[in-house]
Amino acid sequence: MRTIKMGIVGLGRLGKRHAENIAFRVPNAELLAVCSIKQDEVDEAQKNWGIKYAYTNYKEMLENEELDAIFIASSSTEHCKQIELALEAGYHVFSEKPLGITKEEVDYITNIIEKHNDKKFMLGFMRRFDPSYLYAKKKLDDGDIGKPMYIRCYSIDPVSAVEGAIAFAEKSGGLYLDMMIHDLDLARWFLNSEAKTVFAVGDNYLYPEFGEHDDIDNGAAMIQFENGAVASFFAGRTSVHGYHIETEIIGTKGTLRIGTIPEKNLVTVFNENGAVRECHEGFLERFENAYLNELQEFVNCVLEDRKTPVGAFDGLKATEIGYACKQSLITNQLVML
Amino acid sequence: MRTIKMGIVGLGRLGKRHAENIAFRVPNAELLAVCSIKQDEVDEAQKNWGIKYAYTNYKEMLENEELDAIFIASSSTEHCKQIELALEAGYHVFSEKPLGITKEEVDYITNIIEKHNDKKFMLGFMRRFDPSYLYAKKKLDDGDIGKPMYIRCYSIDPVSAVEGAIAFAEKSGGLYLDMMIHDLDLARWFLNSEAKTVFAVGDNYLYPEFGEHDDIDNGAAMIQFENGAVASFFAGRTSVHGYHIETEIIGTKGTLRIGTIPEKNLVTVFNENGAVRECHEGFLERFENAYLNELQEFVNCVLEDRKTPVGAFDGLKATEIGYACKQSLITNQLVML
Amino acid sequence: MRTIKMGIVGLGRLGKRHAENIAFRVPNAELLAVCSIKQDEVDEAQKNWGIKYAYTNYKEMLENEELDAIFIASSSTEHCKQIELALEAGYHVFSEKPLGITKEEVDYITNIIEKHNDKKFMLGFMRRFDPSYLYAKKKLDDGDIGKPMYIRCYSIDPVSAVEGAIAFAEKSGGLYLDMMIHDLDLARWFLNSEAKTVFAVGDNYLYPEFGEHDDIDNGAAMIQFENGAVASFFAGRTSVHGYHIETEIIGTKGTLRIGTIPEKNLVTVFNENGAVRECHEGFLERFENAYLNELQEFVNCVLEDRKTPVGAFDGLKATEIGYACKQSLITNQLVML
Amino acid sequence: MRTIKMGIVGLGRLGKRHAENIAFRVPNAELLAVCSIKQDEVDEAQKNWGIKYAYTNYKEMLENEELDAIFIASSSTEHCKQIELALEAGYHVFSEKPLGITKEEVDYITNIIEKHNDKKFMLGFMRRFDPSYLYAKKKLDDGDIGKPMYIRCYSIDPVSAVEGAIAFAEKSGGLYLDMMIHDLDLARWFLNSEAKTVFAVGDNYLYPEFGEHDDIDNGAAMIQFENGAVASFFAGRTSVHGYHIETEIIGTKGTLRIGTIPEKNLVTVFNENGAVRECHEGFLERFENAYLNELQEFVNCVLEDRKTPVGAFDGLKATEIGYACKQSLITNQLVML
Repeated sequence: MRTIKMGIVGLGRLGKRHAENIAFRVPNAELLAVCSIKQDEVDEAQKNWGIKYAYTNYKEMLENEELDAIFIASSSTEHCKQIELALEAGYHVFSEKPLGITKEEVDYITNIIEKHNDKKFMLGFMRRFDPSYLYAKKKLDDGDIGKPMYIRCYSIDPVSAVEGAIAFAEKSGGLYLDMMIHDLDLARWFLNSEAKTVFAVGDNYLYPEFGEHDDIDNGAAMIQFENGAVASFFAGRTSVHGYHIETEIIGTKGTLRIGTIPEKNLVTVFNENGAVRECHEGFLERFENAYLNELQEFVNCVLEDRKTPVGAFDGLKATEIGYACKQSLITNQLVML
Repeated sequence: MRTIKMGIVGLGRLGKRHAENIAFRVPNAELLAVCSIKQDEVDEAQKNWGIKYAYTNYKEMLENEELDAIFIASSSTEHCKQIELALEAGYHVFSEKPLGITKEEVDYITNIIEKHNDKKFMLGFMRRFDPSYLYAKKKLDDGDIGKPMYIRCYSIDPVSAVEGAIAFAEKSGGLYLDMMIHDLDLARWFLNSEAKTVFAVGDNYLYPEFGEHDDIDNGAAMIQFENGAVASFFAGRTSVHGYHIETEIIGTKGTLRIGTIPEKNLVTVFNENGAVRECHEGFLERFENAYLNELQEFVNCVLEDRKTPVGAFDGLKATEIGYACKQSLITNQLVML
Repeated sequence: MRTIKMGIVGLGRLGKRHAENIAFRVPNAELLAVCSIKQDEVDEAQKNWGIKYAYTNYKEMLENEELDAIFIASSSTEHCKQIELALEAGYHVFSEKPLGITKEEVDYITNIIEKHNDKKFMLGFMRRFDPSYLYAKKKLDDGDIGKPMYIRCYSIDPVSAVEGAIAFAEKSGGLYLDMMIHDLDLARWFLNSEAKTVFAVGDNYLYPEFGEHDDIDNGAAMIQFENGAVASFFAGRTSVHGYHIETEIIGTKGTLRIGTIPEKNLVTVFNENGAVRECHEGFLERFENAYLNELQEFVNCVLEDRKTPVGAFDGLKATEIGYACKQSLITNQLVML
Repeated sequence: MRTIKMGIVGLGRLGKRHAENIAFRVPNAELLAVCSIKQDEVDEAQKNWGIKYAYTNYKEMLENEELDAIFIASSSTEHCKQIELALEAGYHVFSEKPLGITKEEVDYITNIIEKHNDKKFMLGFMRRFDPSYLYAKKKLDDGDIGKPMYIRCYSIDPVSAVEGAIAFAEKSGGLYLDMMIHDLDLARWFLNSEAKTVFAVGDNYLYPEFGEHDDIDNGAAMIQFENGAVASFFAGRTSVHGYHIETEIIGTKGTLRIGTIPEKNLVTVFNENGAVRECHEGFLERFENAYLNELQEFVNCVLEDRKTPVGAFDGLKATEIGYACKQSLITNQLVML
């Protein structure tokens, strides 16, 4: 059984999780190298996990000829450049979303990726690999709910993470491109169609700080798709009950809801508040399995020389819709795609 | 359309509810007379609801020849005597549970009621008339879950009512006869069989005060029924989340649960505690419709000269099981019926 | 205790329910007269319920000087005219929604109603009187969820009723005015603000028959309110699981959902399909208590000479938004109010 | 980072899962050897997973000096003997439950295990390692629900597995020792007390075939614990909705329920049946994480030279209660422990 030898760049909270998944939880994957601009992160990773190579310079890692693939989990601002370098150096690449932080970057890197189509490229829209989402998608594709007419997507970050979001607002691309983009991808995936008309509305209801970066703390969008289906979105930064990721697809023959109560586990607590389901605290908890599954799928695609299920085109299309949302928000007008 | 003219005795919290139901919410019922040993309760009822006759002496009310039926909602210690007097005076009788507070009383009054079988008698096991219980019973009788193998019943009063329960412990008959008796009746009703072997265990986990009256604050029982089915009970006085009445019937082909979360209404609250369903606060709220439906059924039975669905025999059998539980609790032995 | 003597016009399915509520379930209300253009409906009502007066001619009923108030439950096309006649004849009036079926009618009757402000007028937006909605509204007004940022409303009729909806499509005003109008009112009520910008999208996904009357079978809308909140709506005619009425309000400090699973009662069925909550079959079942409560409130307003909580202005505003939705649907453009 | 080199015996459905966990999903564990009496299972495992050593003879595997620990996942009838041989050969041992299939075996092996207390021994009561159970246990230990008064445990196998259970009935030890034993352990764990008095009732409601081996298809038990708490159990073989594992602990200050609806994932399906939560199909699905966590814990205990959290004593005590249940079932009497 062949093993894919990987190097990861970025060892922040999510990067560390990805690194552990590569190192310990996905058969056929091996974590041969770690890279971060922070020496202590690199040292810690190498020591704790027994990693062979450690770098603080990304380009040096790319010269390591033992590697098969690069996993990019660095800051969003680095993705585009690092993807290009890794592809040029001849590696398969898995990159966390987003592809890039400006529309120009995204257009550019999409072309680069297409040019290197002898190498596997996969983008981290991990929700598609969550067991509940996979289960719903299969039911939809099996025709269990008929033709989808309406999809509703919520992505609401816990308010406990709001300080980080404010700090990151300058570079994040804003609520629609940073947060709602997962749902924009899900809508395309479930509806199997492209967005046509966009109307977006939102505001800073609690944290005017977002406004300093032309961002908002909570926002909505309604989008008409080419196949006639309608998509409705709500994204926010101020959930008090936890990390609320919910998707609903109303079809002509039935309805599917994923995560309508974002229940943390199978425990119900009855106390003076009533019957309580505690909720997920954040993305690492909610999408634990999704992160694992997407990595396994990438490794399998490399090993079996298959097309990856989420490519540059998906990143490009989701980004285009996100930009349209942002434009609609600012102009208070419909935006056509 | 004929109307049943009723007099009610007992105007406590539950008595008042019954009185209002008779007066305003059940077609074909008319509240012609109210009776209580407390003059102010009588005055208030007469004034607020415009009731024609008011008494502080029960026997005087029984001399009112305009009345068709007597509704007994007085203290448990009065039921037996008042049932007898009303039947002897020629009235149809609806009595709140229990039939009596000693086994001797219950045996005695069962005979009396049987002797007056030209008059309708109905006992207030109101849960049988709750829409959810009726719905479950119909499914069971329709064979939807096959043959019942196991029934589980919870009756847990809110801790907010514990002071009243302690004060009442001397006369209540104790947890099994006062609280669990509703479930003992439900088990007989759902299983359509009689109890055979009883094992009961409980304790004063929080309120030793109950112990002064040979009572307990929380207790369980497991009962083998003649048809081979098993029934498991838990009753208590210390629920912090509300009034928890839950019943489950596991059959050979499916399972029914009633009230597994005793949700107050259709509202889910998402707050810092998680996803919260608030719960019923007490029996008046939970069984609002059941109290209405049982009264309507009694009135219909009188008007249509039909046998009432809950008679003295049901009270007798539930009481016998309750006594067996109490005996098992005290002796820590099995009790055969 | 004074009693309001009422005459009802319209004895269809909903009219009959209202008539029974007046006759039997609301203290201080008396059903003195029934009116329908169908002789058999009138005869049946008079006989079954023992009603004193029966009419097939509405104007004749208005000449009955014993009456205090008129309840209008006739066809939507008759409301406007019948409201005017009743007010001119000096009665208090309760009318089922809608106020009228054209914008002109609604403007006209709003003026008429305002002119007769010595008489009580109330419009049947019954959802406001549903216990769960009342409970949520109180929580919102108490500040439990902070400031509302987003409201989501679903109103989906069971597909079992679709034939009736098709037959009625010519006169109903269409999905937005006939079905979504309840939610347009709820949004105004919960947000305490007026609609500003409207985008509506929908289609005939299953029943092209609706298209013959410029109507659709399922549709959505997103509306920006003056206070900055966003409202998202979905209405439809093709629900397979039952009558799905759901409302969610996301606030700065918490979220409220009403009816997220439109559970029929407290029974959970475990069978080969899984853990199943059966759902409400239709509006008469779902809003049984709401219909009762709105009537009680109207009677109380008359008796206590209070302003009714839902007046012509509410009907007018909801209608205006409904028209804007329809216009947006047809033009595929934003509509400003 | 040191690695524990393991050999596994038994490559049936559960054995294979354990083997994969050792080989791929638990850091610090290495699957060095596989053993099964079935040559094809051994060959397949060796080939698919690239395992170094493969045996059809258990004793030969025990001679492999590269191994640190033996994982026993063979037939229940082999456990006792294989545990002894592995300990005598100087290995750490993880064994699937049960310790043995007769009381004599269990007593015997408990002594053997205690004698080899220089080696780690752990028994596969995996439910203790399920995230939801761990979460509940922590809440209980933190005092969130006060003092436990009552525990209810359900373990109901899907009817789809009934043929296997019938075939296995001769050797399984019967419903109480094979199925309910997990709950007997959970009750001891949650209550932190030992069983005192046992009453068990059950029958063959659907499959008389179980009776040929003195077994039953569904059964209940109520057990009084030394600390005064009561435990109520139901176990069965005929669940139609899936694999139903549910535990509830009612305390003096609150209640915890684990798995009250054994929901498969976060998807709710709305279809003609209502609002449906699909359920777990079997133990491999429900306890996927628990199997992983228990293995990780065993590996950690070996590496850190810690006492394992589930030892022979736990197996012994659960077995004693199971035997008492069986005896109570047969005699229809209370059994004291």
